[in-house]
Amino acid sequence: MRLSDVETPALLLDRARMRANIARMNAAVARHGVGLRPHLKTAKCAEVTRAMTEGWSGAVTVSTLREADEFFAAGYRDILYAVGIAPNKLGRAAALVASGADLTLVLDNAEAARALAAFGRERGIRFPVLIEIDSDGHRAGVRPDDAATLLAIGRELAEGATVRGVMTHGGGSYGAAGDAALAAHAELERAGAVRAAGVLRDAGLPCPIVSVGSTPTALFARDLSGVTEVRVGVYVFFDLVMAGLGVCREDDIALSVLASIIGHRADCGQLIVDAGWMAMSRDRGTASQRVDRGYGLVCDDEGRVIGDLVVASANQEHGIVARGDGGPLDVRRWPVGTLLRILPNHACATAAQHGRYRVVEGDEVVAEWQRFGGW
Amino acid sequence: MRLSDVETPALLLDRARMRANIARMNAAVARHGVGLRPHLKTAKCAEVTRAMTEGWSGAVTVSTLREADEFFAAGYRDILYAVGIAPNKLGRAAALVASGADLTLVLDNAEAARALAAFGRERGIRFPVLIEIDSDGHRAGVRPDDAATLLAIGRELAEGATVRGVMTHGGGSYGAAGDAALAAHAELERAGAVRAAGVLRDAGLPCPIVSVGSTPTALFARDLSGVTEVRVGVYVFFDLVMAGLGVCREDDIALSVLASIIGHRADCGQLIVDAGWMAMSRDRGTASQRVDRGYGLVCDDEGRVIGDLVVASANQEHGIVARGDGGPLDVRRWPVGTLLRILPNHACATAAQHGRYRVVEGDEVVAEWQRFGGW
Repeated sequence: MRLSDVETPALLLDRARMRANIARMNAAVARHGVGLRPHLKTAKCAEVTRAMTEGWSGAVTVSTLREADEFFAAGYRDILYAVGIAPNKLGRAAALVASGADLTLVLDNAEAARALAAFGRERGIRFPVLIEIDSDGHRAGVRPDDAATLLAIGRELAEGATVRGVMTHGGGSYGAAGDAALAAHAELERAGAVRAAGVLRDAGLPCPIVSVGSTPTALFARDLSGVTEVRVGVYVFFDLVMAGLGVCREDDIALSVLASIIGHRADCGQLIVDAGWMAMSRDRGTASQRVDRGYGLVCDDEGRVIGDLVVASANQEHGIVARGDGGPLDVRRWPVGTLLRILPNHACATAAQHGRYRVVEGDEVVAEWQRFGGW
Repeated sequence: MRLSDVETPALLLDRARMRANIARMNAAVARHGVGLRPHLKTAKCAEVTRAMTEGWSGAVTVSTLREADEFFAAGYRDILYAVGIAPNKLGRAAALVASGADLTLVLDNAEAARALAAFGRERGIRFPVLIEIDSDGHRAGVRPDDAATLLAIGRELAEGATVRGVMTHGGGSYGAAGDAALAAHAELERAGAVRAAGVLRDAGLPCPIVSVGSTPTALFARDLSGVTEVRVGVYVFFDLVMAGLGVCREDDIALSVLASIIGHRADCGQLIVDAGWMAMSRDRGTASQRVDRGYGLVCDDEGRVIGDLVVASANQEHGIVARGDGGPLDVRRWPVGTLLRILPNHACATAAQHGRYRVVEGDEVVAEWQRFGGW
């Protein structure tokens, strides 16, 4: 099947770029001698997961129990569910463990630890747990030097669960740009996790796992001493936000949305395409970066960036393509029916709008891979 | 099943509110003596569609051919696909017609009309077509007074399709607020469509259908003379954007996302919930309104708005709940495991993140309705 036979809008995955992105991350992590536990929340796809885990232990990270169910069924046993556990999810998590999964949970407070331990005692199950550490003030987690909270969590867990270690996500790195700033974020992440692990060990608690990760920090870390594993996801596709940070080039982005020109706004010098926010997502991640790419950066049907054309605004199924500098396009050069490929701001968000990847090599669709969503 | 038995995050649909919203729109449209052609792009659900079409002719509007396929299979025959047709979708559209659907297509330029007529001649099918009119400079469409383009489209279509009328969407009304401004937008929409219909009729072209619509204009229109049908979708659920325009009250919003508190940011006085942008969507529609509701407005588990708590920021599966005024919450009042219901900025976008509605009456889940996505 050729690209010209695909009904638009459609999510395209450039397999050669994906493979190169995976090889780059594999080398970056291997150089530190630590494990890789790929995050599957970006791809949610068995075929992509196989490519991401090849050559590694098969340990994976997920953001939903649905992902845990799906990937356990696909043969992955060592699964970290990396979102603080809510009490109403414990029954489902226990069912996964009963089926044979080695499912590790995450939490960052004594209340949740108490609820987990109580559930564990009642059901005769000791969940392994990583304590989430807040290494950069970005989101969730215990501050690395908050020994009182770390030990309170440890005490609660001792009543009915197992501390397996600590984890942190250097999400603040998404606001950094350039090698030095990214390396500094990586060190913040490493130091925070290692320090918290030290607090636990000093108190006699076991802490075999020290887990860190974000795509920018993993690629730019200079030292990962004390870390045992790295969790990364978006590297498999990359996106405009990552390109804006200097983490990848636009030419590395493996994901795009194929769209058709369906009309013109001749008086404004703009094009209308059949990829709106339903196909691109509402993610405007580049809005806070140096160069705002609207709802996506426009390429020709071979995937080459065309000047600075962007999807400037979006309705549900309509995108308006305009020059990034606001000037008018000569719309006569863009006939109705022309195919465009649009690079996404945020691969996780754009992929989530679609049920399948059309895997492309050149202008040939070589495979169709299903992806899932939901919880 | 009680709400407390539902795993979070989950999309809730308050059936009593939905029914009241439908009754309100039905009355608003009936008072003008015109037809209602509900837009199904918001709900994408057979049960919701049945409630929206009850008492009307069964004519519907869709935004994708997937919707057309699904609703034709569910028994709806008179279907308007209201996005400018791309050439690569014509084969699928023809298959629907061959199956017995009365599928009307939309376009706004002579190029697309020529492609459609050529396809029609080749395949022996005359698609009925509405010409899209740009009544408010918002998106796509021919300007109502651009007789040259309207007639050029009519001439092209005559070679292999049928002009059935005109349609317009007063999307500019989403930027208006208050009764008078909304009524003015409704008049802009009506006048544009009627004027374009007059151009066609004056040239001897038939124009039986004059189709207008957006939820704000339909509810606030004072006169719909010359209009034959109204297309509306988001009214069935309403959302914070509509409430911000004064089109509904927050208490009318039938859709919410059930979330659990999974942790605290005690030093910031903020809560962490398990509804991030994957559950809420990345839509920030209230950001440009007078009151910005972040990624959603927080209610208690019975659906009552709690002061001005909003989802201030969102990661994929994490939401950070904070006071709208930026002040700290007393997090001790919000234990881990507490259920919250979060009202969405934009019902179309939030619903699209979910595969099913949990239909609730009070704290009872009385039904589960599937919804679909994709193209």
